[in-house]
Amino acid sequence: MILTWAQHRLKVLSSNIVLKRLKSTNRHKLATSMSVQQPPWSPPKRQAEEQVLRVYNSLTKTKTEFVPTNGRHVKWYNCGPTVYDASHMGHARNYVTQDIIRRIMSDYFGYDVHFVMNVTDIDDKIIERARQNHLLDTFRSQTTTLSAGLINQVRDAWRIYVRERLSKGLPSDEKPLEGEEDAAFSHICDSIGNPDWKQECLKRDEKFDMHFSSARRCLNALQTAQLQLGTSNVGLDVTHQLIEDSRDILAISLDAQLKSTVTDPAISRNLAAYWEGKFFEEMARLKVREPDIVTRVTEYVPEIVAYVERIIQNGYAYEAEGSVYFDTLTFDGTNGHNYAKLEPWSKGNRELLEGGEGALSSRTGRRSPSDFALWKASKSGEPSWPSPWGPGRPGWHIECSVMASAIFGENLDIHSGGIDLAFPHHDNEMAQAEAYHNCSPWVNYFLHTGHLHIEGLKMSKSLKNFITIDEILQKFTPRQLRLAFLTQLWNSKVDFSESLMTGEVRNIETAMNNFFTNVKALVSQYRAEGTASDGLHHYESSERELISSLYRSQSAFRAALCDSFNTPAALDTLRDIVSRTNVYINSRGKALNVPVVENVARWVGEMLRVFGLGEGEKSQIGWGQAEEADANLNREEILTPYIRTLSSFRDGVRALAMAKNETSLKDILALSDKLRDVDLVPLGVALDDQEDGKALVKLVSPADLVKAREEKRLQAEAKAAKKSASVEAEHQKRLQKIERGRVSPKDMFKPPSVPEGTYGSWNEDGIPLTDGEGKELSKNQGKKVQKDWATQAKFHEDFLAWQKGG
Amino acid sequence: MILTWAQHRLKVLSSNIVLKRLKSTNRHKLATSMSVQQPPWSPPKRQAEEQVLRVYNSLTKTKTEFVPTNGRHVKWYNCGPTVYDASHMGHARNYVTQDIIRRIMSDYFGYDVHFVMNVTDIDDKIIERARQNHLLDTFRSQTTTLSAGLINQVRDAWRIYVRERLSKGLPSDEKPLEGEEDAAFSHICDSIGNPDWKQECLKRDEKFDMHFSSARRCLNALQTAQLQLGTSNVGLDVTHQLIEDSRDILAISLDAQLKSTVTDPAISRNLAAYWEGKFFEEMARLKVREPDIVTRVTEYVPEIVAYVERIIQNGYAYEAEGSVYFDTLTFDGTNGHNYAKLEPWSKGNRELLEGGEGALSSRTGRRSPSDFALWKASKSGEPSWPSPWGPGRPGWHIECSVMASAIFGENLDIHSGGIDLAFPHHDNEMAQAEAYHNCSPWVNYFLHTGHLHIEGLKMSKSLKNFITIDEILQKFTPRQLRLAFLTQLWNSKVDFSESLMTGEVRNIETAMNNFFTNVKALVSQYRAEGTASDGLHHYESSERELISSLYRSQSAFRAALCDSFNTPAALDTLRDIVSRTNVYINSRGKALNVPVVENVARWVGEMLRVFGLGEGEKSQIGWGQAEEADANLNREEILTPYIRTLSSFRDGVRALAMAKNETSLKDILALSDKLRDVDLVPLGVALDDQEDGKALVKLVSPADLVKAREEKRLQAEAKAAKKSASVEAEHQKRLQKIERGRVSPKDMFKPPSVPEGTYGSWNEDGIPLTDGEGKELSKNQGKKVQKDWATQAKFHEDFLAWQKGG
Repeated sequence: MILTWAQHRLKVLSSNIVLKRLKSTNRHKLATSMSVQQPPWSPPKRQAEEQVLRVYNSLTKTKTEFVPTNGRHVKWYNCGPTVYDASHMGHARNYVTQDIIRRIMSDYFGYDVHFVMNVTDIDDKIIERARQNHLLDTFRSQTTTLSAGLINQVRDAWRIYVRERLSKGLPSDEKPLEGEEDAAFSHICDSIGNPDWKQECLKRDEKFDMHFSSARRCLNALQTAQLQLGTSNVGLDVTHQLIEDSRDILAISLDAQLKSTVTDPAISRNLAAYWEGKFFEEMARLKVREPDIVTRVTEYVPEIVAYVERIIQNGYAYEAEGSVYFDTLTFDGTNGHNYAKLEPWSKGNRELLEGGEGALSSRTGRRSPSDFALWKASKSGEPSWPSPWGPGRPGWHIECSVMASAIFGENLDIHSGGIDLAFPHHDNEMAQAEAYHNCSPWVNYFLHTGHLHIEGLKMSKSLKNFITIDEILQKFTPRQLRLAFLTQLWNSKVDFSESLMTGEVRNIETAMNNFFTNVKALVSQYRAEGTASDGLHHYESSERELISSLYRSQSAFRAALCDSFNTPAALDTLRDIVSRTNVYINSRGKALNVPVVENVARWVGEMLRVFGLGEGEKSQIGWGQAEEADANLNREEILTPYIRTLSSFRDGVRALAMAKNETSLKDILALSDKLRDVDLVPLGVALDDQEDGKALVKLVSPADLVKAREEKRLQAEAKAAKKSASVEAEHQKRLQKIERGRVSPKDMFKPPSVPEGTYGSWNEDGIPLTDGEGKELSKNQGKKVQKDWATQAKFHEDFLAWQKGG
Repeated sequence: MILTWAQHRLKVLSSNIVLKRLKSTNRHKLATSMSVQQPPWSPPKRQAEEQVLRVYNSLTKTKTEFVPTNGRHVKWYNCGPTVYDASHMGHARNYVTQDIIRRIMSDYFGYDVHFVMNVTDIDDKIIERARQNHLLDTFRSQTTTLSAGLINQVRDAWRIYVRERLSKGLPSDEKPLEGEEDAAFSHICDSIGNPDWKQECLKRDEKFDMHFSSARRCLNALQTAQLQLGTSNVGLDVTHQLIEDSRDILAISLDAQLKSTVTDPAISRNLAAYWEGKFFEEMARLKVREPDIVTRVTEYVPEIVAYVERIIQNGYAYEAEGSVYFDTLTFDGTNGHNYAKLEPWSKGNRELLEGGEGALSSRTGRRSPSDFALWKASKSGEPSWPSPWGPGRPGWHIECSVMASAIFGENLDIHSGGIDLAFPHHDNEMAQAEAYHNCSPWVNYFLHTGHLHIEGLKMSKSLKNFITIDEILQKFTPRQLRLAFLTQLWNSKVDFSESLMTGEVRNIETAMNNFFTNVKALVSQYRAEGTASDGLHHYESSERELISSLYRSQSAFRAALCDSFNTPAALDTLRDIVSRTNVYINSRGKALNVPVVENVARWVGEMLRVFGLGEGEKSQIGWGQAEEADANLNREEILTPYIRTLSSFRDGVRALAMAKNETSLKDILALSDKLRDVDLVPLGVALDDQEDGKALVKLVSPADLVKAREEKRLQAEAKAAKKSASVEAEHQKRLQKIERGRVSPKDMFKPPSVPEGTYGSWNEDGIPLTDGEGKELSKNQGKKVQKDWATQAKFHEDFLAWQKGG
């Protein structure tokens, strides 16, 4: 349209010109008068359509154009961790990959991304783990002596474990009945050397090997304990060794017996808080950006109750036995709703459904097997919150529906998570939210990150290829790990293998490091030479060619990322331009155009930083060095923990001074000691109090200081132990002495203190007069019994005094 | 289309469902069998069209959509400096503003910008300046003794200067002829005190004042030299003082006589290299990013010759007297070409045209006055390069056409420069390039930065408001300067004024600094508290409101930048969200959601960094501190003063606690206040005591904190002074009242309290009965004295009480 208009204007103008040409004879005058207006302009034509971002959407299983509903604002909810154990490589794969996509969206495509993640801190796994830890800890602290009773208790637990857990992997005709456990186990020990047999067991139960290890360890511990008991070695050490070696088995048994006694909700909350803290620490090490908002389930329970009520009102859920279930059959097909949009083929898959419901869920009350819990009635030993249906707790899926709705309302642009969450978790989540909002669709794009395998196999504890993040970071840097994930598509399976890390990953890292080192050296030399000129511009065909390659790389890079964040292809683009630039550098000699090379290096470095591969976020050439990151601490980062310690010490002192208690001054001194002995130790500050009241301040390595304090503590403990041992010995001695005085001197020569018939008659004080045969005692005998009598009289006096309470 | 397809699929599916419903009676079975496929999906609808970038294009004088021809790749040529003097505020305005636009294009909109800038190192101004500097340096080194000959030589030069330069500003009837210079100058000295006369002169020649200063300085130097010569003081010092004070005048005179002797091309090249180096140094101080490629004219002369040859071949240029001129009249209108597309109304403007041609250009040989030089024949004393038309050098405009074509070929997306370059420079550049490539248009978007005025006036040396970058950076930081430019539209006039810098600029800077300091303190406290939870999610309506404001700000920010880089509007958006966040922080108390606040601060900081306002390019919250960049301190140096302060505070607390005085607790509190108000101030630590007893810790610039504490102290002093003044006034008032009671009522009507003879007789209480003449007091008089007596009796009572010590 604009073109047409411009063409029209051109015509009008042209005819004007012709008109004026006719009227005027002075050419120069003409030129002036005809040009009071600018000539028409039309917008440039694009040589090709602009690339648009397409993403692989699990709702279609295809790549579809990404269209945020509201400008550049992107509402994104990501399923976070269930916090009950250490994070592992599967977590790393999932969260680093999400982080890469998030960085590309915001740092490369310039979306205003609003990234919300939940922390699941109410969950059957958390409840069980916390309860078992708690029961085991209590049991350990109460059990200080090895006894036949303890051994029997452990043996019973072991037998149940063999019958109920280990036997899952056995052929059905080999599963032991009660009383057959020992024989069955010795049969397993004989058979397990046979790989085929073991393989069959693992097929039946992938945890078979893990169960076997636990059972064997426990049985060995039982045998050892039995021997110790025989030699009366029944102290704390041997007792706790037995408990430790049986912990997996004992925890299950204690939980089965005592779970209903565990009622303090802090027990699960504390476990969750601990592992949540650990999770975010690991994420920080992996350079995963913090979410914009973190939501915790424990903070949203009232909202969850209200949400469930509305779903019931809308007719998509029902109460049964104090629990509430989602009515999948009613929902599916009503008002255009579809249940299980992500994986309609998984509807009714019992194994997946049960996994989603949790180990502590009720097995009864559902109208259809595909219905799932929105609210679970809590049994005793399970934390609970009030609700119209009685005390209970949220089901897993409802948590995310509620929290995502609380932040984003009735529509999300993106929902992400690991592929194993697609069904039932995400399908149920969507059904709930759509049942609540009466909307469809609740989520526009579902991004699922692919599985992680280790050396070709699924990671599992029983396969002994289970790697925690902490373990992997001892072997590889966060950059190498991230590079490994970048070499794979985010939504396909990653096979994490030694050959990947030492092959492709190492190759890329080395190529980049060499390139950046080289370019930095060239640039530094060029700068040092100043603006000297040899009169040549050094921008010839080879420079033109290199710059063209750079443009093509930039375009190809964009194309790769537009193609559903194809990071392997994008990395290839970077590697390609790096190698072209290396060729250029090597070929160009003295005529090298350094700024052109610098441009390439800056761009490659920036793009690597987009992927989160940058260290020390400076605008330097390249992607920085991990080592520099420490040295590059800014003043603020260094100072903050120290100032914080100072301030909270002052807070404490002020609070005590203002309280004006009798013990305030004493408490202030105790706080001063704590500052020295506890707070400042991990900061590497040693305060040595001196006589003049001024402490000597030393700044040392925190590790050394911690070690020194630990040694001091151990010494003090040893001293205290020695002291308490000598006090105890003294005490025992005294007790023996007192015990010796229990018998009155009047009775000391009569049975049962002496054998029947030792003496015949006694005086009124109980001193014997005749022996058992009636014979008078000899003079010497008489003297001795009188002396003994006097001694005992004294002892007895002491005894009586002690008895009175001395 | 996709929608239609989706609707179609929906129909097919629905009919399938109906079919299956008919066939099946089992509802559950139906649900399973009908869902082996995912339900249809259609792309989300955008709530509004996506914003597109529009730029004010000088080729249309309107804002037009920016369409790069080749994907996201942007070919951008920017006119660089002519390097012969120090860079000034006009340069700062131009290059900082270009830098801002470039950063927005690449860092915000994500274009792959390829930014090329030239350095004009062949130019008549460079040639003249270099030659004059060279001749003056030679003259100075050869002239070591003061002599009558030297004085005469300087006086002759002075006379010529008065006749040829200074007289330009004089009325035509006052211009001196040869021999009249002394009289004329003394007339000027008399008249210059008259503002109207001087104003008229400046209208004739804006450099009049500058010429007058040079002439007066030189004349004074001549008189001094004459005296020194009389006393035979003829050494190097006085000689070089004369040369120095006459340098402007001598340089012109030496150049006029000796220019043809200056033949070494290195002389201009070295001057250019020196000022080019200085230019890039200043740009670095202003945080202007280096161009991707810098092109120098001296390195492109052969290409320029070839380019000119092609234009001649194409019929748009002709040779005359060893120079080559562009044939504007032939070009304009041939093959759809337009001459002067940017400013067609300036065609034939002689003043502008001559400015473009340079002081050393030939005045003859042009076919039309609007024709301009592509190649200039060099006279002796002017550097030259070989050409088919004899030794010469490039014209100014052709330089840019050739260098931009050398990098980008026959089309640029953007060409930029100061608005004063639009005509003739850019119009001529375009004409040349289109004549060379036979293309149209060569440039798609012309971006011209607006003028800079200082306190409302054009900057010029004669107006004494000429400010170099070095001078301005002694007064303001690069950040403040950049902020000043950001508060104005890039293409409008900037009035750089004291009130802008101390008003709006300071306000923005302070608001941002306070905001970031506050948020950092909150975040740091929040992190220190770990993942403790009170069970509430702290994401209520006020958080929802704040996050909505953030989205709206992000969208408004984008809209402002899409609206031709409207940085003032974009800054307003940032200020608005900052003040909303401050309101939120102040209103929310303990329920404050720190991550929400952190999100805002991070976004605001990032956007400020997009504008190039960031210091120390870390991904920290905020925009960094300039001071920190220098601080290459090691950990120990940084920490020691803080740890020392902590330790001595603890020493003090312990000493007081151990003393167990009555006032110990009070003294400890006083010590805590002193720590906050005195000890930590020079360390830049602000502790804000809060109600919950936990101080909020802020790490700020020590200078700011000292200043703030000083202000607080002065305020407190003023308040105390006011209070003590009012206490004193109260005291005085009381004293007066007491003083009034000093006389007993018995004596109050007797002398000396009343004049002798006022009354004649008194009763026993001293109340008058008769007046001085013995007449009894009237009833009224009697009442009055009794009332006065009663009043005084009360005052006297007070006095007696006070005397006793009340």
